[in-house]
Amino acid sequence: VVDDPIPPTIEWHEGRVRMIDQRRLPGELVLLEAATVEELCAAIRDLAVRGAPALGVAGAMGVALAAEAGLDLDDAAAAICATRPTAVNLAWGVHRARAAADPVAEARAVAVEDVERNRRLGAHGAVLVPVGGRVLTHCNAGALACAGYGTALGVIRAAHEQGRAPTVWVDETRPVLQGARLTAWELDRLGIPATLVADGMAAGLMAAGDVDCVVVGADRIAANGDVANKVGTYGVAVLAAHFHIPFYVAAPTSTVDPDCPSGAHIPIEQRPPEEVTMLAGQRIAPAGMAVDNRAFDVTPAALVTAIVTEEGVARPPYAESLAALCRWG
Amino acid sequence: VVDDPIPPTIEWHEGRVRMIDQRRLPGELVLLEAATVEELCAAIRDLAVRGAPALGVAGAMGVALAAEAGLDLDDAAAAICATRPTAVNLAWGVHRARAAADPVAEARAVAVEDVERNRRLGAHGAVLVPVGGRVLTHCNAGALACAGYGTALGVIRAAHEQGRAPTVWVDETRPVLQGARLTAWELDRLGIPATLVADGMAAGLMAAGDVDCVVVGADRIAANGDVANKVGTYGVAVLAAHFHIPFYVAAPTSTVDPDCPSGAHIPIEQRPPEEVTMLAGQRIAPAGMAVDNRAFDVTPAALVTAIVTEEGVARPPYAESLAALCRWG
Repeated sequence: VVDDPIPPTIEWHEGRVRMIDQRRLPGELVLLEAATVEELCAAIRDLAVRGAPALGVAGAMGVALAAEAGLDLDDAAAAICATRPTAVNLAWGVHRARAAADPVAEARAVAVEDVERNRRLGAHGAVLVPVGGRVLTHCNAGALACAGYGTALGVIRAAHEQGRAPTVWVDETRPVLQGARLTAWELDRLGIPATLVADGMAAGLMAAGDVDCVVVGADRIAANGDVANKVGTYGVAVLAAHFHIPFYVAAPTSTVDPDCPSGAHIPIEQRPPEEVTMLAGQRIAPAGMAVDNRAFDVTPAALVTAIVTEEGVARPPYAESLAALCRWG
Repeated sequence: VVDDPIPPTIEWHEGRVRMIDQRRLPGELVLLEAATVEELCAAIRDLAVRGAPALGVAGAMGVALAAEAGLDLDDAAAAICATRPTAVNLAWGVHRARAAADPVAEARAVAVEDVERNRRLGAHGAVLVPVGGRVLTHCNAGALACAGYGTALGVIRAAHEQGRAPTVWVDETRPVLQGARLTAWELDRLGIPATLVADGMAAGLMAAGDVDCVVVGADRIAANGDVANKVGTYGVAVLAAHFHIPFYVAAPTSTVDPDCPSGAHIPIEQRPPEEVTMLAGQRIAPAGMAVDNRAFDVTPAALVTAIVTEEGVARPPYAESLAALCRWG
């Protein structure tokens, strides 16, 4: 869409992978180009590009870069998959380009399909948002987490486009502040009313009756419906259950991992401690402080009201509903 | 105590109020002096001094400053109490100095008594910490929140001194990062093993069985046991209940407000949005972003396992146990 207020997150451009450098937002909208697999892997590791569906596109485009350079595709695939272990889409995108006769064409197709899929996902999810609904979201599952449009924010965006007039509580999402930096930026561009809050404010908001539903994305969904997503998601899910508020997960079927029976099998990435102890180049904790900085947590399926995919809405029991939507076996 | 690894948070020194400037920690240990009521009010508003028991001392010393300057004490008392509405100790300290024949002597007595009271509180609470217990705490209820020794950290410190070998999970506590900046600094000085985590990590830690109890402070406790404390506390309490982990509140009886029947009557302070949108002079959210920055939330008494005071440990029903400990009526 030419006049989309949010430019493409990641695209193939003249033999390179061109991405919005998400580390520079919200201050500056800067594009970053990766000409080699090494450059792309660095962009993934350093979170210039992040978000499960966007990582799927990045994985496919990384294989395309390797193919164009005449490199060994197995080596390239292994290097790309090793950058971030939790999001299953990365390996899924790598596999798609790896298995195609024309990896470049396939990688471009992955990006185009992603946006189209997110629009369908949004349409399925929009009806779950009450008219005038106050939606709380955590992290960024928007256009910036995908090739475009977004998953959790795609649901909110579709509700907005349908005139349901949602408003959004944006968890800032420490330590990398994807909510404050990215989700707030997207909602501002889209003209959707939003209020930023510290992560610790969710309970107070819910207790006051100020949250009608929660919508988040996912980095990997196990076959039983357990959901790996940005650290802090599990806590929001427990709160939503405590306050009897629906908790929705929005993710494409490519995020569902049929080979992963439950959340216990999902590898959880430890990120560098400096993400917690440093901010904007300044030290915000004592030097040498021990830090646990696991990037994700796993919300048990029992706390998830529904999972919204491009194929429809899955309800418990997820082992059956996800299998039907994803057309396994 | 001369060789306390943490210097006095606030003390009367040659006609002035001398405080650790908590805005500069953990980078620098700098003392700030207030010579006038106006300077003291600014130090309170800007969080150079914070924490309910420390605010009690500050309130008393503010009246002492006014008395030394020959000012109208009613005006001074009103100005001091208006700086921060939630912590009841501020008004309590103001009242104590206001009612005394010698406000300076009374203010100094408030500070001395505070440390002594916190040591008794710590002794009562230490036995609640299992040997080798992994304690999660939120915000800073340490020596820096008091004249010295601490309330929640006083419990942990007493357990440490008794050889119970506690270790601590420190919530960083956005937006002002009292956990990362102050609690981490205190525990480091005390030699108590601690690990810093983003606020969103509590659910994952608890689910993994890595938290044995939660201990937090309080800014005001209603007569029915509802607890106002730093925003995010309510969420931790819901999680603790969900995972069947004891949730303890440590506060002196001066934090219990007999005139406040329940949490619904506690005023909740809105702090400036820049606490959320700016950090270390850098913008971390889009310009003009709407922010809700309420500084506190109210944890219902039903989620509180016990309240530890200097007079002993209150258990539900709190209306009776607190009345007995605080000797009302």
